[in-house]
Amino acid sequence: MTHPAPTTTLDELRAALPADAVVTHPDRLLARAQDASATGPTGVPLAVVHPSSTIEVQAVARIAHRHGVPIVPQGALSGLAGGANAVDGALLMVFDRMAAVLRIDPVDQVAVVQPGVVTRDLAVAVAAQGLFYPPDPASDSWSTIGGNVATNAGGMRCVKYGVTRDFVRTLEVVLADGRVVRTSTPTVKAVAGYDLTGLVVGSEGTLAIVTEVTLGLLAAPGENQGICATFPTVRDALLASNEIIAGPHRPSTLELLDQVVLAAIVAHDPHAGLPVGARAMLLVLTDEHEQGAADVAAYQRIAHEHGALTVDVATDAVALEALLRARRSFHAAMRAIRGGSINEDVSVPRSRLPELLDRLEELSGRIGLPIGTGGHVGDGNLHPAIAYDPLDPVQVELAHRAHESILGLALELGGTVTGEHGIGLEKQGALDAELGPTVRELQRGLKAVFDPTGILNPGKKI
Amino acid sequence: MTHPAPTTTLDELRAALPADAVVTHPDRLLARAQDASATGPTGVPLAVVHPSSTIEVQAVARIAHRHGVPIVPQGALSGLAGGANAVDGALLMVFDRMAAVLRIDPVDQVAVVQPGVVTRDLAVAVAAQGLFYPPDPASDSWSTIGGNVATNAGGMRCVKYGVTRDFVRTLEVVLADGRVVRTSTPTVKAVAGYDLTGLVVGSEGTLAIVTEVTLGLLAAPGENQGICATFPTVRDALLASNEIIAGPHRPSTLELLDQVVLAAIVAHDPHAGLPVGARAMLLVLTDEHEQGAADVAAYQRIAHEHGALTVDVATDAVALEALLRARRSFHAAMRAIRGGSINEDVSVPRSRLPELLDRLEELSGRIGLPIGTGGHVGDGNLHPAIAYDPLDPVQVELAHRAHESILGLALELGGTVTGEHGIGLEKQGALDAELGPTVRELQRGLKAVFDPTGILNPGKKI
Repeated sequence: MTHPAPTTTLDELRAALPADAVVTHPDRLLARAQDASATGPTGVPLAVVHPSSTIEVQAVARIAHRHGVPIVPQGALSGLAGGANAVDGALLMVFDRMAAVLRIDPVDQVAVVQPGVVTRDLAVAVAAQGLFYPPDPASDSWSTIGGNVATNAGGMRCVKYGVTRDFVRTLEVVLADGRVVRTSTPTVKAVAGYDLTGLVVGSEGTLAIVTEVTLGLLAAPGENQGICATFPTVRDALLASNEIIAGPHRPSTLELLDQVVLAAIVAHDPHAGLPVGARAMLLVLTDEHEQGAADVAAYQRIAHEHGALTVDVATDAVALEALLRARRSFHAAMRAIRGGSINEDVSVPRSRLPELLDRLEELSGRIGLPIGTGGHVGDGNLHPAIAYDPLDPVQVELAHRAHESILGLALELGGTVTGEHGIGLEKQGALDAELGPTVRELQRGLKAVFDPTGILNPGKKI
Repeated sequence: MTHPAPTTTLDELRAALPADAVVTHPDRLLARAQDASATGPTGVPLAVVHPSSTIEVQAVARIAHRHGVPIVPQGALSGLAGGANAVDGALLMVFDRMAAVLRIDPVDQVAVVQPGVVTRDLAVAVAAQGLFYPPDPASDSWSTIGGNVATNAGGMRCVKYGVTRDFVRTLEVVLADGRVVRTSTPTVKAVAGYDLTGLVVGSEGTLAIVTEVTLGLLAAPGENQGICATFPTVRDALLASNEIIAGPHRPSTLELLDQVVLAAIVAHDPHAGLPVGARAMLLVLTDEHEQGAADVAAYQRIAHEHGALTVDVATDAVALEALLRARRSFHAAMRAIRGGSINEDVSVPRSRLPELLDRLEELSGRIGLPIGTGGHVGDGNLHPAIAYDPLDPVQVELAHRAHESILGLALELGGTVTGEHGIGLEKQGALDAELGPTVRELQRGLKAVFDPTGILNPGKKI
């Protein structure tokens, strides 16, 4: 790829878009350089562009394609793998002017939205019509649907409802050369073509630029209620978790925090009220209507049968907030231990969870850094967090070596290096080990079909 | 592609596989020539091959690849679009020797199976361990998991649980050149690569040969119970259906039969016991545990509120069989009217269903052939059946023109020409209209990445 004199590209962009839609002020470029991982490498972009319509996205793509200028589509920069980080000479494409909920249809149970809509805003808008958009990444108060589609975002409700891909009916996308297509019909079922919709979801902006998303919705669930239980060992908690999953009382949330996290939370928030001796905590919620009370009773019974030290029950919104308190302070508490933390995102078959947690404890002991693990235990998707002092070069080095060890451990246990955050820039090194050379070759082939000149988010994902 | 002297290929196959695994007897070739659609064109194959292992599949693929000989992977030939029909000079690859359930894991809630396993056999095997494999295509007593994966098969339970793709965790596949890969890790969540698993599901054997399938399972549901209600108009039934979908009592099955089908069923089976004046029927089931009774009560209430003529309730297995009787005789009854029927598989947004049914009635009146419609109304996926006399050339011609009209109608209403049966050979003509030239170009590009020499099920799907 040859880079032309930047002014040519900028001149063309300024001719095609409104004057304030092409921004080159260094402060604005810097503000959009890096996602929430805040650790990955980042390049110096050419400009930030703010298209207002699919037609403007097409215009930008045509100009970029002609000049071989990279485009990095960006959501809210809530990503945790550097997937939306700036690339040298790139156009950072921001969707703040394409943030409308275009249509909510209660009969078809779909919402048609632009990519810049904030996840929770959409959830609130559909709830007002008795509908439900389940995916709830932790960043949902600021993440965008476009970013959720790019990363195939997960969240706490995945254990019952599935991930973002499970709710995307069809996409309007602009290809690298500026052509616009719909990836499928918006029907519930459709098998006419290869599944382009599912292929673009999770592709981290490397295959196409998403300009409109049609999301499937469900009827509104019941109010959340559930339990928070502490256990004397993490194995007790894992056994209780597995028994809940195996039974008829399917939870809408099933989260684990281990003893390192619990200790960090107590240190961070003395009012957290965790019992002495608790070495694991489960948060188990249901959102069923008539069956909700029976679900909660079953969770209580199972927790007690597995030796729970405490079982707090919440059947209303206020009590529920208290229940969620510990889970919500997970990452802040881990960071507070030593000032820095690396948050992993591994996923393994549920049967391998006891071994994963044992091995993480062993690793922590070996390197002398706290590793606290929590997350979506019902899906086998956990977020080990390595606490370290960012001002101590020895700890920084140890933490980064521990990061590599944890990725290797996930693969050794038959899992993946990323359950929901994505590859981005941070996990490129693990792709050979996880996917193998033949799958990588196929993936590069798919990339070339969509983006033969490689201008879409180059250097990410694959 | 140049075809070599067939003996060379056969000699190599016989050297690579056990003697009885390469079959060329004309009767055996004929028996595997055509799927259940029994209408599409079919070629004269070279041989039927029965591999016993992934290694034997690889050996066949390498030989076929070297000689440019097509491979048509076949399941049980229960398909309805000609997708598994024989192709001239092809090897028909049959998986009767790769039909084992390799592993059922109740903790990970997965089943690892070979492609030749019969769908219902798998469902029964997992049920014995308290687990549940929801996809239930109508042919599940003889269809295979490999065929279900190839077509992304649906069924009556999709309205609650989704289609085959939603349950495939990972695939082992043999590529056209004989290399073997896993499409992903088997974890519940995984976002390391592009979604190759979802891409291969529904690709009708045109991208890769599936040799092992890891399926996600759920905890066993409750016993089925529900209602069968008849209505004075199809619009009443559709309104009731939409109200059920919009509410908190999510059904596990929601099926419609229209008046033409009901009349055909009464003519076919005088003991069917349908009320005079019934112009539509809904079958609504739930498989919830504690909530089941409340669900059934809600379905009864909603049916009555929409003017139901009759509401039969079933809360046990015997009564349920009676309830299912009319739905099960749908296709036989339609065929019995005039001796032949063409069964469509269109899917539209639910809001367009009233118009679809009106337009089908209008079409039927115009051509003078009965068109009866039934199917998965909760998903907007219906199966209009055109009844005709196969011995009357005029009716044959009219029926085939009506077939084209119905495909056009689905597209006009924002739907797809195939919700769950696939493109195969039969619906190739509709691909341009549904997908458009750019998506078709992308699809051909994807095909070329997986199968650059085009030996896998050529002429199908794309």
